[in-house]
Amino acid sequence: MKKIVALGELLLRLSTKDYLKFSQVNEFNADFGGSELNVLTSIAKFGLPVEFITRLPKNDIGESALMEMNKYKVGTDFIPMGGDRLGIYFLEKGASIRGSKIVYDRAYSSFSTIKKGMINWKEVFKDANWFHWSGITPGVSQDAADVCMEAIEVANEMGLTVSTDFNYRANLWNYGKSPKEIMEPMVAKCHVVLAGDYASKQYFDIEPEGTTEKELLVSLCEKLKDRFNSIQKIAITNRGSISASHNTWSAVLYDGKQLHESESYNITHIVDRIGAGDSFMGALIYGLNTYDDATALNFAVAASCLKHTIYGDANLVSKEEVENLMGGDQSGRVQR
Amino acid sequence: MKKIVALGELLLRLSTKDYLKFSQVNEFNADFGGSELNVLTSIAKFGLPVEFITRLPKNDIGESALMEMNKYKVGTDFIPMGGDRLGIYFLEKGASIRGSKIVYDRAYSSFSTIKKGMINWKEVFKDANWFHWSGITPGVSQDAADVCMEAIEVANEMGLTVSTDFNYRANLWNYGKSPKEIMEPMVAKCHVVLAGDYASKQYFDIEPEGTTEKELLVSLCEKLKDRFNSIQKIAITNRGSISASHNTWSAVLYDGKQLHESESYNITHIVDRIGAGDSFMGALIYGLNTYDDATALNFAVAASCLKHTIYGDANLVSKEEVENLMGGDQSGRVQR
Amino acid sequence: MKKIVALGELLLRLSTKDYLKFSQVNEFNADFGGSELNVLTSIAKFGLPVEFITRLPKNDIGESALMEMNKYKVGTDFIPMGGDRLGIYFLEKGASIRGSKIVYDRAYSSFSTIKKGMINWKEVFKDANWFHWSGITPGVSQDAADVCMEAIEVANEMGLTVSTDFNYRANLWNYGKSPKEIMEPMVAKCHVVLAGDYASKQYFDIEPEGTTEKELLVSLCEKLKDRFNSIQKIAITNRGSISASHNTWSAVLYDGKQLHESESYNITHIVDRIGAGDSFMGALIYGLNTYDDATALNFAVAASCLKHTIYGDANLVSKEEVENLMGGDQSGRVQR
Amino acid sequence: MKKIVALGELLLRLSTKDYLKFSQVNEFNADFGGSELNVLTSIAKFGLPVEFITRLPKNDIGESALMEMNKYKVGTDFIPMGGDRLGIYFLEKGASIRGSKIVYDRAYSSFSTIKKGMINWKEVFKDANWFHWSGITPGVSQDAADVCMEAIEVANEMGLTVSTDFNYRANLWNYGKSPKEIMEPMVAKCHVVLAGDYASKQYFDIEPEGTTEKELLVSLCEKLKDRFNSIQKIAITNRGSISASHNTWSAVLYDGKQLHESESYNITHIVDRIGAGDSFMGALIYGLNTYDDATALNFAVAASCLKHTIYGDANLVSKEEVENLMGGDQSGRVQR
Amino acid sequence: MKKIVALGELLLRLSTKDYLKFSQVNEFNADFGGSELNVLTSIAKFGLPVEFITRLPKNDIGESALMEMNKYKVGTDFIPMGGDRLGIYFLEKGASIRGSKIVYDRAYSSFSTIKKGMINWKEVFKDANWFHWSGITPGVSQDAADVCMEAIEVANEMGLTVSTDFNYRANLWNYGKSPKEIMEPMVAKCHVVLAGDYASKQYFDIEPEGTTEKELLVSLCEKLKDRFNSIQKIAITNRGSISASHNTWSAVLYDGKQLHESESYNITHIVDRIGAGDSFMGALIYGLNTYDDATALNFAVAASCLKHTIYGDANLVSKEEVENLMGGDQSGRVQR
Amino acid sequence: MKKIVALGELLLRLSTKDYLKFSQVNEFNADFGGSELNVLTSIAKFGLPVEFITRLPKNDIGESALMEMNKYKVGTDFIPMGGDRLGIYFLEKGASIRGSKIVYDRAYSSFSTIKKGMINWKEVFKDANWFHWSGITPGVSQDAADVCMEAIEVANEMGLTVSTDFNYRANLWNYGKSPKEIMEPMVAKCHVVLAGDYASKQYFDIEPEGTTEKELLVSLCEKLKDRFNSIQKIAITNRGSISASHNTWSAVLYDGKQLHESESYNITHIVDRIGAGDSFMGALIYGLNTYDDATALNFAVAASCLKHTIYGDANLVSKEEVENLMGGDQSGRVQR
Repeated sequence: MKKIVALGELLLRLSTKDYLKFSQVNEFNADFGGSELNVLTSIAKFGLPVEFITRLPKNDIGESALMEMNKYKVGTDFIPMGGDRLGIYFLEKGASIRGSKIVYDRAYSSFSTIKKGMINWKEVFKDANWFHWSGITPGVSQDAADVCMEAIEVANEMGLTVSTDFNYRANLWNYGKSPKEIMEPMVAKCHVVLAGDYASKQYFDIEPEGTTEKELLVSLCEKLKDRFNSIQKIAITNRGSISASHNTWSAVLYDGKQLHESESYNITHIVDRIGAGDSFMGALIYGLNTYDDATALNFAVAASCLKHTIYGDANLVSKEEVENLMGGDQSGRVQR
Repeated sequence: MKKIVALGELLLRLSTKDYLKFSQVNEFNADFGGSELNVLTSIAKFGLPVEFITRLPKNDIGESALMEMNKYKVGTDFIPMGGDRLGIYFLEKGASIRGSKIVYDRAYSSFSTIKKGMINWKEVFKDANWFHWSGITPGVSQDAADVCMEAIEVANEMGLTVSTDFNYRANLWNYGKSPKEIMEPMVAKCHVVLAGDYASKQYFDIEPEGTTEKELLVSLCEKLKDRFNSIQKIAITNRGSISASHNTWSAVLYDGKQLHESESYNITHIVDRIGAGDSFMGALIYGLNTYDDATALNFAVAASCLKHTIYGDANLVSKEEVENLMGGDQSGRVQR
Repeated sequence: MKKIVALGELLLRLSTKDYLKFSQVNEFNADFGGSELNVLTSIAKFGLPVEFITRLPKNDIGESALMEMNKYKVGTDFIPMGGDRLGIYFLEKGASIRGSKIVYDRAYSSFSTIKKGMINWKEVFKDANWFHWSGITPGVSQDAADVCMEAIEVANEMGLTVSTDFNYRANLWNYGKSPKEIMEPMVAKCHVVLAGDYASKQYFDIEPEGTTEKELLVSLCEKLKDRFNSIQKIAITNRGSISASHNTWSAVLYDGKQLHESESYNITHIVDRIGAGDSFMGALIYGLNTYDDATALNFAVAASCLKHTIYGDANLVSKEEVENLMGGDQSGRVQR
Repeated sequence: MKKIVALGELLLRLSTKDYLKFSQVNEFNADFGGSELNVLTSIAKFGLPVEFITRLPKNDIGESALMEMNKYKVGTDFIPMGGDRLGIYFLEKGASIRGSKIVYDRAYSSFSTIKKGMINWKEVFKDANWFHWSGITPGVSQDAADVCMEAIEVANEMGLTVSTDFNYRANLWNYGKSPKEIMEPMVAKCHVVLAGDYASKQYFDIEPEGTTEKELLVSLCEKLKDRFNSIQKIAITNRGSISASHNTWSAVLYDGKQLHESESYNITHIVDRIGAGDSFMGALIYGLNTYDDATALNFAVAASCLKHTIYGDANLVSKEEVENLMGGDQSGRVQR
Repeated sequence: MKKIVALGELLLRLSTKDYLKFSQVNEFNADFGGSELNVLTSIAKFGLPVEFITRLPKNDIGESALMEMNKYKVGTDFIPMGGDRLGIYFLEKGASIRGSKIVYDRAYSSFSTIKKGMINWKEVFKDANWFHWSGITPGVSQDAADVCMEAIEVANEMGLTVSTDFNYRANLWNYGKSPKEIMEPMVAKCHVVLAGDYASKQYFDIEPEGTTEKELLVSLCEKLKDRFNSIQKIAITNRGSISASHNTWSAVLYDGKQLHESESYNITHIVDRIGAGDSFMGALIYGLNTYDDATALNFAVAASCLKHTIYGDANLVSKEEVENLMGGDQSGRVQR
Repeated sequence: MKKIVALGELLLRLSTKDYLKFSQVNEFNADFGGSELNVLTSIAKFGLPVEFITRLPKNDIGESALMEMNKYKVGTDFIPMGGDRLGIYFLEKGASIRGSKIVYDRAYSSFSTIKKGMINWKEVFKDANWFHWSGITPGVSQDAADVCMEAIEVANEMGLTVSTDFNYRANLWNYGKSPKEIMEPMVAKCHVVLAGDYASKQYFDIEPEGTTEKELLVSLCEKLKDRFNSIQKIAITNRGSISASHNTWSAVLYDGKQLHESESYNITHIVDRIGAGDSFMGALIYGLNTYDDATALNFAVAASCLKHTIYGDANLVSKEEVENLMGGDQSGRVQR
């Protein structure tokens, strides 16, 4: 089996327990996460080999992050240790009509100071067939954007599929370049894209046209495809937020001709919705390596549905659990 | 800004974790609460100065209560320490079809032995424009009722607005006086009232007439206004209890002429509904000091909606959170 | 009051906290449970004397199990200590669309090596009027089946009512006998049965006929009654699984002529549904000893509804709580 | 085997975790304790039947206390439920040079309102051979003192051995009688006494004379024996407080002629020293019912030594653990 | 009473529980600390008014820090909110032969970007008589050093006593200036100094001469006094590290003529020794404002002894607890 | 670097928190351990590649064990999944004069049913230079003994060093063979041995002669060496048990000629002494692969000293931490 490789920032997640407000706690749950890592952890749980590229500080907190990746069989052999600190995000878990709240403390992270040349991409990609990154990575710093571009180029040279999740974050992109300037040439070398209308507008001023929901989706996909020839597949997820504890969830996959539409799920009693998009991306990459497009889409939607019931950033469900839900069993019966 | 002052009992709240029954636990969460304190804590979070008058035992538990109030910027400068004990309530948190259960252990509290003359009300009210009390306060003991009347009288003399929450508790009023006897002269000097039909019947034998919900509400308000000339505004909240985890919530505000009706909210996945009425009262007082009547009502309803997602007796949401919900965003999306 | 006696296996339940997956935890909640014990704990909470017969290892874990039974007034005077180990089950608590998952580690338990002659059933049944067992007991081992048959025979001789819950478990019955071979003669001496169509098919190849839900239920009951003359009453519960956190729940009771149908409940925000069937059985036994048939059924359904809000295997609600729900109050209001 | 009966107050103990100060916590460990109950729990663990007489409020907290006693096989069949509240004590656990701190909240307890005639002592003592009380019991209220005297008299009539632990508490005895006035006639009907020089001075103005430690002990015992003819045995414990975490511990037993002296233990790394005296008393009563005097003393000292390693008010060690320590094994090796 | 003011950095402390290694935890205790804040919290507990000057980020984590200071009555009225982040330190609690380990993540903090002119020192010092800072403050950044010098100068102008704790931290001082260059002019305007030989060597190349311990101490004090005329009093603490759980602790105070020597304490079973030096400084400042020099020293040593038994950065003991230990009671007996 | 391989049983460890007795808990800490795994985890932390051979059940508990090994870089590539269950041990943590207590529940484990031929030892040992086992492994079952012998033989053929820890457990060896019968031929092919006089007597009837401690040690080593020619090095640890919280610790290493004696350590405030012997063995194997004999011994003693401060079965200290202690620093000072 060929490896799936991703590049991104790993963050320490410090979250309040039991829906408490920040001012009510004197302890935090401590976990590790980050968009691209979450993608890989999902894939590793499904059984494919994965390799994560990031930069971590050379201290006990960085070591703990490595150990956590080991635990989930996420490869860490090419990570250059160094830099000042691990980025952190504080999470106040919401419920019902009160949404969760994130306070970022990721500036000056080790990852933001990764440099071109630190990673031997030829070596990294030797047994790999896929490279994934998200819009967060180049949003962190010029250095991170440079390394990401470096990786995309080597991946293309070596014939890997390159995927990206647009993942627009308004509180990044502070280093003096516009997202568009940076993203345009990067996306131009990608083959599989997890897009969204808000991000498409922010990054590329692309706005879908049409009146029905479906027309709008097809329009967005076509405009993206027109702009970026390399793109072969475009996925778009659709979250309906009824409350912090109750969402609906579905997705589409456009293959250049056809718009596959997934089952739509009603998810109540949400445990943790952070990382749901990443779990979709991970399951989609796994699916596209395993099934036909329509099945891959349904696998990805079912997997990311289940993510809403899993504490933490990463989706820890097994392939069997996802296939059971895909098969239509939403009953939540006790498995003995 | 002028201060909001309230008089009432502070209780130690000992609650079971995770919906456990009393017989299942060997630890309790320990927090402080009490109707009038909850009102003030809300107001302090919104940014107005507040001062709480109560009586606490001169021991480490009383000291801890003081420190908790300091934390939330609730003024404690006029609290006479002394008496035997802090009142306690034990809370077994319910869920779904099983309601929460409260066991009171508040008899013989320090507050019940507060005496007329212990508080220099003239001094307390110097920089204040509002005094609040609830029906719990005079229900505790003759002494507490006397001190409350003392405060109401000085407040009226000094031109403060006086508000009350009827808050009828069947397990209080054990000191030989009927609620009516005590409440009648007190409410007769109030300007803003949080009423309810059950309490109005218990306290004053007032029963609304009419066929529609709205007619009944207007009738209750008019009868109260007729009985008590001083009253300028009457608020009534309306909880629909579908289960312990799912309620509906709305309110009205009567200004003598008009009945303002609020948005109605559907609250599922309730975290903690204790103190919701107090959070309404707090936000209403803040609102009447800040907005027009209709906006104040909507602010109060939105704030108390959010209280259902906050652990503990007091509403710890910010003005921004409330205004966001008032603006119509019930989606519970993650705020980054 | 006469005692209710039951025979069965007691298990150590090790469950993950807060909906965590097995791989996420480094601690387990530890409780004791087991179908027949759960039945008795319920009955003891309602106020009848009960006696549990099982076998426990003579070590500190076995001792702790005894102490837990003492706590809930479950009689333990006839338990023969000995054997190798206490059976265990690991529980990963699900939520929403993800069901709970049980990993059994009950092989080679002390209970599986209980032997005929170890229990002086005449003595045990001296002050008793009821004996209960479930299909789990004979499924554990030939020895357990033998002791169960021994008990059923003495109970019949001594005029006790004998009840059983079919409780088919596919992962038991590994000792070389078919469930049918074992169950047939046992059920033939029972008077009250908690049945189900899946178990009836597995055990006795009985399949209901009919088109409406009610026809099917009546058909199943009649076929069971035809097969086993001793049976006087048959109960069947009906769970609708919308998700792991949201179920519907109702039951019927057939008395040979009439099919009593219960209220149907909608249970959202489920806390713990393990043992709901046992809590129904316990409340039914209590009810049949206390009320008429229709009331007994409604009591049992209301009690088992409440079980979904109680952490752990056993239903710890009081008779008052059940009667309150039976009376129609599903509001979950705070009881002060 | 004959029962050991005791009369006393049961308290809810609310303690801080991990040596935290009161102001640092928002949760308390919750346990039940009380001097005479602690004595009985010890004895029950060693295997003798015991019965506790107290008064508890008729609410869920009182019920939980009953269940906890059930768990440890402490008989509760004669407890008259009623009164206002369960007494509480708050415990801030000290370590090293900082001692633990107790804040009492026991006034107005249900036990303080127990009345003569509520307990049918003849019935209680039917199968008993021993009655125990401590100086705390009559210190609580005149009512409690009256009931205690009532019990002592019936016990003497029925030929039971009566024991007492002087247990002087300066913060009790607030009901207008001097300790001496009350204690004198009570102790005059006791046979086994756990005394101490401070309490002997407070209660009876008895002061030992002599120069060596041993002379002082013998003098105290002789003076007590001279004053109270009924006394047959007097025990005195001796704690050396090096720090909150490090104590020495020994005791003597005077039988009217001889002063038995125990082994002296060095106890470092103390886990919980509350209730050590009670565990001595319990083990002494057990010992005097089981061994000769010298062995009973050594058993009692070893048992109470082990109490310092047990969390909570009551000593939960087994007879085997105590005998192992008595046998000289202080090594604390792992028992496999 | 006049206020004590301090300037310094506030850090979020994230510590492992129960002596666990970083790699073993998935939760952290979260507290706030920092040398100068710890000093003030101690003083506030003893009853003097205090004011803390720092810079905090304008987000929920910064708000929580403010609320924690409110709780302990540490004034926060002059804190300019802003900057990027709150500095963090991770603490792995050691025991026995394994020392605690700290990983700093304090670079780029809000405090490091405080600027001259942000604080109106004249206003801050209006009701103050004392200003305190430590060597950590100027070690953070040039900006922090500048603001500290600004404060020292205004304090001198306005006649306040200025104190400093040398507190040399090798991992600070990274901004291009030598500690000596910065510290020399600052210490030259101080009146009370908590020194140490290692820091004196690092900062000023001062090395004591002599053969006995006392000669060395006097020599160090004299050399410091010779170098800095402004200094009136020099304190030096002396920790003997037998293990992470067992230390000895004493101190001296030099008043220009005499060397006062304190009691020496043996502290076993240490709970938390972080902040012990700060608790000494706080108690010394309180003592010098309250007692004579010798008593102030003994108060400071006893207070900081007790700090070793208090979880967290700050010493939360009361004046009564300190005076009790000063009085010679090291027994750790239970206070009832 | 060559791999270190070990064969043994992996157990789930369920321990009580905070020194609680089994009967006091309703939750267990859950960790994985086992003598040979503990040895490898230590070695992996020091930086050598390791591979563990065991058998685990194919369920979520077995999977969690695999993930925990991944985390610590313990190789799991050759583990044959299957069998009934994971062995368990329950641990009641003692303190002071009360020792810890272990209740085993390891019968019928997956490991006990490992079979010859399941492991391709040639493949396993390809990149290895060392094989380790302990006396627990053959004590589990005939099958485990057979596989262990199989491994020892292949290891000898392929030129690996073979080490064993005698580790006599009285509660194993239940399958009808005497320990001697089984151990004799196995030890006869070992090169490095961690022995002890009790085990040497149990296994081989070897008893040392002499009068001084050193004579006895040398005698034991010589007798072992005489009996088993293959043995090159014999280590013996020496624990002095002053209490469960206070031990002394040292060791010797005999190289056929010379008896190296280590530093002796005084360890108070022990956190967790389970696995100390295993941590010695692991550090000794690492040391013998890295240093000269005397240094290896001192490294092993220092490492195992530190183990007493680490929660859990395995020693998680780094090489740097061990070398620091070896260098003589027992001060436990805070490392910043």
